[in-house]
Amino acid sequence: MSRFLKVKTAGEILDILKTFKPLAVEKVGLDSACNRVLAFAVNSPEPLPHFDRATMDGYAVKARDTFGASETLPAFLGISGEATMGEEIRLQLESGRVIAVPTGGMLPRGADAIVMEEYTHYLDEKTIEVFKPVAPGDNMVKAGEEIGCGDRLFPHGWRLRVQDVGLLAALGVVEVAVYSRPRVAIISTGDEIVPAAASAALPLGKVRDINSFTLAAMIRQAGAEVSSSRIVQDDLDQLVAASKDALEKSDALLLSGGSSVGVRDFTLKVLDYFPDSELLAHGVAIRPGKPTILARIGKKVFWGLPGQPVSALMICRAFVLPSLAILEGCPDISELEGNSLQAILQRQLPSVHGRTDYIPVMLSAAQGQMWATPVFGKSAMISMLAKANGYVVVPEHSEGVERGSEVKVYLFSQ
Amino acid sequence: MSRFLKVKTAGEILDILKTFKPLAVEKVGLDSACNRVLAFAVNSPEPLPHFDRATMDGYAVKARDTFGASETLPAFLGISGEATMGEEIRLQLESGRVIAVPTGGMLPRGADAIVMEEYTHYLDEKTIEVFKPVAPGDNMVKAGEEIGCGDRLFPHGWRLRVQDVGLLAALGVVEVAVYSRPRVAIISTGDEIVPAAASAALPLGKVRDINSFTLAAMIRQAGAEVSSSRIVQDDLDQLVAASKDALEKSDALLLSGGSSVGVRDFTLKVLDYFPDSELLAHGVAIRPGKPTILARIGKKVFWGLPGQPVSALMICRAFVLPSLAILEGCPDISELEGNSLQAILQRQLPSVHGRTDYIPVMLSAAQGQMWATPVFGKSAMISMLAKANGYVVVPEHSEGVERGSEVKVYLFSQ
Repeated sequence: MSRFLKVKTAGEILDILKTFKPLAVEKVGLDSACNRVLAFAVNSPEPLPHFDRATMDGYAVKARDTFGASETLPAFLGISGEATMGEEIRLQLESGRVIAVPTGGMLPRGADAIVMEEYTHYLDEKTIEVFKPVAPGDNMVKAGEEIGCGDRLFPHGWRLRVQDVGLLAALGVVEVAVYSRPRVAIISTGDEIVPAAASAALPLGKVRDINSFTLAAMIRQAGAEVSSSRIVQDDLDQLVAASKDALEKSDALLLSGGSSVGVRDFTLKVLDYFPDSELLAHGVAIRPGKPTILARIGKKVFWGLPGQPVSALMICRAFVLPSLAILEGCPDISELEGNSLQAILQRQLPSVHGRTDYIPVMLSAAQGQMWATPVFGKSAMISMLAKANGYVVVPEHSEGVERGSEVKVYLFSQ
Repeated sequence: MSRFLKVKTAGEILDILKTFKPLAVEKVGLDSACNRVLAFAVNSPEPLPHFDRATMDGYAVKARDTFGASETLPAFLGISGEATMGEEIRLQLESGRVIAVPTGGMLPRGADAIVMEEYTHYLDEKTIEVFKPVAPGDNMVKAGEEIGCGDRLFPHGWRLRVQDVGLLAALGVVEVAVYSRPRVAIISTGDEIVPAAASAALPLGKVRDINSFTLAAMIRQAGAEVSSSRIVQDDLDQLVAASKDALEKSDALLLSGGSSVGVRDFTLKVLDYFPDSELLAHGVAIRPGKPTILARIGKKVFWGLPGQPVSALMICRAFVLPSLAILEGCPDISELEGNSLQAILQRQLPSVHGRTDYIPVMLSAAQGQMWATPVFGKSAMISMLAKANGYVVVPEHSEGVERGSEVKVYLFSQ
């Protein structure tokens, strides 16, 4: 295995992710379809609307009966009845006559427009005056005008939004075939790591586990499921056993490294115990996160992540979430750009050509603007976590970003 | 009840919402604390870090032993051992000596800085050369330097983000007191409404229920719980019974009106059956959504919403979500601005002074910009739903927005 040739750029990593295949297809009810990804294109099983429908309160007419009507010379039309909301109207509209129809009500056969109530005058129970002409189609929607039977509603790979669920409901599509949600296992490694819930008197030299909480929270927020989460000491046998166990019930495994020297080697050695593993990247030309590892184990995704909490979150947001989106069947990872915003950079960011830099930033609103202030600090500073709202990216072929530039901030939390 | 005096502006509605009280307090584990709102401020129960901690691989020194060291005149220091990751070091550092410490490792007593490994040269197992002086505190974090015991971490009313959960884990705070999530009941009214799952052969005059799906999806996305959802015909007795039933297990009730004439009156009449109800707004100076109703029933929130699906979603996003945030204990509703983005308006929006307009828009990305195109259409057009990504607001005291202006788009989906 030519491990030393496996250093990749950020862009190459995203390209590699596209070689992973989506998970199994399952059917879900519309109640739980929001944010799920369609496994097949959806066509409309019926027309919309189902019937000629009024969009205003008024009277169904034959439009030509109103031609030439004006304030001074109104058209006099006979009332033939009224449509009841929610019921089929069986009356047929004859020339020279109207039928009252409420907004959303059904037009009678023979009618081709609605005259709004405000342009009419009710003379008596038999007659109205119409003051304004209408054209055919005015103030109504014809059956099938919005959507025809068989029309494409959403393509394969589309992530359903709140409003899409509404359109599916309107057309009676109450179950959809979607890709399964990725199940993600998290292992925090490091001899210094103890559970966050460890007793108040923390032994000197130990630190509480952070990454399994932050990674899990970010993964759940992205709509994936956390199948397991545990701490493992820097011991190869324990790591292999825990990884095997975790992968049985998950589609992706995140191994967030401790800071001990040699842990990276363990991560690689773990892969050797999986005969169907393939190392895809050993190192990424980014900072932080250079020692990040990406591998395939069968159809599953394996990530070796930095142990430093802010770095781990940035790599999770930048690379792990896209890998989960691919497993969930999203053909376009760039949709994750959604969880970002524009801000003005508060200070200059130097960088190095040939490396992509991820800089944690703190956001603040002032003078009607959003401002991004880089959060610098010693790399082990855990308190940087809550200060950083997200990060900005200084691309590979850039030598920095000037103070005052508009930058895109990728957010940790939605 | 002086019903005709209750027309409010959009701003007045938001002010009224602030008079509602937060729900009960409950304790949750850190696993499920993300996006929850703190019922009490949280102070740190311990210092961070717990011990003097190295932020780089290198050697613990007394900084003064390195003063004056240079490439040409290195300091020669004796090696007294090494710190093991995750373990307390009991050695005491003497003058003229060093102890090896890995990143994240504990500094021995007597040390006040770390010399990075790259500025040293390993002569033999007893001695290193140091080429560069360090100042006290370099490449290390002192115990309590990041966070002191008792320091305020988060204020009352703070909504916990992914990264905040990490800081709490770091400090061993694995359970937090938060406000309960609002339980919301949804009732879709209208004689024309049938369940979305109704048989394929939809009776003429009927339309499928949309709002209970879209409102539920939006409410769940905001982190609240949908306690029940049903369709009720335009019948006062049925509406009263359904409302009573729904309110028993919920903190807020949304009654999304059908388009039948007279349904609004039913909504008001329903309130008369609740002796502890108080009408807070009967009509809002907005378009669409003018007939929106807001009431208090005991401590619970009652909303009468428009039946038109796009209007219902806009009012839900603009007013119902803020009301749920208040119930959940968020003192600042403006945080909901987060779920929005800036775009360039594709055409002029006229408006009327004294009324706030909510205009559905479709977003598209082109020329490195986000563009917002107003989605106009007949008001009953259900297909507008999936076209609209969100809406822009034309404020009360404005007479419109020019084409090419930068506008804020409030999104339906995150």
